Amino acid sequence: MATELYDLTVPVFIRGLKNLSALLEKGAAFAAEKGIDAQSLASAQLIEDMKPLTAQVQYACDTAKGTVTRLGELEPVAMPDTEQSFEELQARIARTIALLESVPRERIDGREETPVPLKLPNGEIPFTGRSHVLVFSQPNFYFHLVTAYALLRQAGVPLGKIDFLGGA
Amino acid sequence: MATELYDLTVPVFIRGLKNLSALLEKGAAFAAEKGIDAQSLASAQLIEDMKPLTAQVQYACDTAKGTVTRLGELEPVAMPDTEQSFEELQARIARTIALLESVPRERIDGREETPVPLKLPNGEIPFTGRSHVLVFSQPNFYFHLVTAYALLRQAGVPLGKIDFLGGA
Repeated sequence: MATELYDLTVPVFIRGLKNLSALLEKGAAFAAEKGIDAQSLASAQLIEDMKPLTAQVQYACDTAKGTVTRLGELEPVAMPDTEQSFEELQARIARTIALLESVPRERIDGREETPVPLKLPNGEIPFTGRSHVLVFSQPNFYFHLVTAYALLRQAGVPLGKIDFLGGA
Repeated sequence: MATELYDLTVPVFIRGLKNLSALLEKGAAFAAEKGIDAQSLASAQLIEDMKPLTAQVQYACDTAKGTVTRLGELEPVAMPDTEQSFEELQARIARTIALLESVPRERIDGREETPVPLKLPNGEIPFTGRSHVLVFSQPNFYFHLVTAYALLRQAGVPLGKIDFLGGA
């Protein structure tokens, strides 16, 4: 049986965010253990004109939230990007997971061919529900998850691919 | 209409690999322009115990190839990880895309509930076709694509998110 749109979004995002939460936990524990300033780890960047770890977490959350909001035509829920600490990032992830868990399957399924454009500052990409998820949401969500992993890994946090993928 | 397994794999991987190819082209052009040794860019790492750019490309290719091989019960095609230069990496990507393009939709569709285990050195993960793709193949594929992006971006190659996502 082919895969419903809900199953390509809500559980995929929840799983990814739970894995991200576990990565951040290891990051915070590493900072505490090594006497590293957690704040400076949270604001680590790969290169100076690229967004820091805090923003990678915020954007991963926003991609998940924005995708289900647009697909399900839900009332937008604002989550301002104010987090600076690991604790605040964990709270943002928890809020996002709670929002995802509240989305009824019926709001998402069957919207594969429905126009679900992505509005950008300089225009609009005319996606359908399916292409929105496969061409934008999934790669963009993983982009921010993997960049968060890369930042923690580069800082020396003891992580392996299995931490990113999560348990089976 | 729900989404067929073929559409969650073959076109997703082809699109990602074409975007990866474009990232590497920009990397090679950057090295040439700045007089940087392309070989050292190709072997860049985020941290010394993490695989270099060459391996990220090889593993992305392998994830795509391995996924369709297992889902479609295709004859395995060996692609040894011997690439060292940008040209060789482009050839590996092209071979992988050609293989993906040769997979008939009928070999993939309808295998959502079929056992498609992932064999690992220390055991086997008992996936179905669907969970194999959503829990392993897609995140693992993007893991290597984004890590390749991160390596190029950190080296100063002028890339933005749109280069990773590709055109609409």
